[in-house]
Amino acid sequence: MPTYRLDFSYDGTGFHGFAAQPAVRTVQGELEEALSKVFRGPIETVAAGRTDAGVHARLQVVSFFAERAVAVSTVARAVTSMLGPEVVAHGAEEVPDDFSARFSARSRTYRYQILNGPVPDPLRRHTTWHVSHPLDLDAMNVAASAFVGEHDFAAFCRRRDGAGTERTVHEARWAADGDLVVFSIRAKAFCHQMVRSLAGFCVDVGRGAVDPSTVPAVLEAGDRSRSRQIAPPHGLILWDVEY
Amino acid sequence: MPTYRLDFSYDGTGFHGFAAQPAVRTVQGELEEALSKVFRGPIETVAAGRTDAGVHARLQVVSFFAERAVAVSTVARAVTSMLGPEVVAHGAEEVPDDFSARFSARSRTYRYQILNGPVPDPLRRHTTWHVSHPLDLDAMNVAASAFVGEHDFAAFCRRRDGAGTERTVHEARWAADGDLVVFSIRAKAFCHQMVRSLAGFCVDVGRGAVDPSTVPAVLEAGDRSRSRQIAPPHGLILWDVEY
Repeated sequence: MPTYRLDFSYDGTGFHGFAAQPAVRTVQGELEEALSKVFRGPIETVAAGRTDAGVHARLQVVSFFAERAVAVSTVARAVTSMLGPEVVAHGAEEVPDDFSARFSARSRTYRYQILNGPVPDPLRRHTTWHVSHPLDLDAMNVAASAFVGEHDFAAFCRRRDGAGTERTVHEARWAADGDLVVFSIRAKAFCHQMVRSLAGFCVDVGRGAVDPSTVPAVLEAGDRSRSRQIAPPHGLILWDVEY
Repeated sequence: MPTYRLDFSYDGTGFHGFAAQPAVRTVQGELEEALSKVFRGPIETVAAGRTDAGVHARLQVVSFFAERAVAVSTVARAVTSMLGPEVVAHGAEEVPDDFSARFSARSRTYRYQILNGPVPDPLRRHTTWHVSHPLDLDAMNVAASAFVGEHDFAAFCRRRDGAGTERTVHEARWAADGDLVVFSIRAKAFCHQMVRSLAGFCVDVGRGAVDPSTVPAVLEAGDRSRSRQIAPPHGLILWDVEY
């Protein structure tokens, strides 16, 4: 009973999120249906990141067991052929049975993309959040650096039953490239809506509405009302998964 | 009877090209319908560039006469409100009566975008041409520099009745930014499908299928079969118009 790893990317625009749900079109739902055809039997996948509706992936990773073996090049080609161009496989490989795309991941990197200019861009409307107010990148980086380390991120998490909110952020920084302002953040794991919540807070910092020195107090208080706003999903991209 | 100039951008994916045509959805058709509502009377626009189906514009410019005056901020806001987010107005202004978005333009700049990597990218599928074969940028720039100057581009033009094929290219060069390979070309005017034809030829040069030193002979022969291939429309963007 071989175990497989599949690496792929997707445009989340047309999906109700990654995780399979009844009666709606999800990335995992489509993927499992495609894989079940390839392996001629039901396939259940475990993913590195469960992205919300509208969120994209430059790299998503799933692992799964199969009753029979199929050549890895066939697996990748079949997935792209059935789900492309919205979902594109980068490659598949056979992995040891104890590999889990979710639990074996050392860290995940997300990018949040802002288009910072006077008017929205039709060509980037599905991949950036348009913010017309000028942003103070230095102030945003003061806030971002205060997120690094081990903290209780309750103020920036949409609570899920039974899920804790302690997380360790390895890196968090903002950088500008022309009118594109990008937040890169890497952590072992994130709680629900955490990246969008941190990005939304930082935008309020960048607009001058909040002082970045308040981050430790906001984390300490653990009060979601102090995290200000949640950035919209379409600017968020699961960028990389490190094993 | 005031004359207006309107600057805007669009995602060409959902349109049958720029130029108004009966029974299909075009950028100009939608725009003229919107403007006719704003000005409460029929409006006919003249454009800087007539882009084909699937081609985008970072900057497109139209000019038009109107029977009555409307505040320019109202014009821009109404266009974005009616046609956004696929079409976004950057601004409108009242211009002298002899201004024509088409004939007053000194030059047009187009960009052709190639994603050069092993797999396609779902997030850039509408704005790049995916070419997996490694490309020799230096060779492509040898070809591009041979396009600069005044030439008969018959070999690279889809002929239209009565239209000449002599054109003057001011600048043409290829540059890479990570996996994105971009052709920038500026000319007073272009003949039909010229940028896509030049880009397609350069890709064959970059793949090593054609020697870039053949450009003068190909121009001289004026034979379309020697221009090799026409790059697909979705990688092309009308980037700027200079007045």
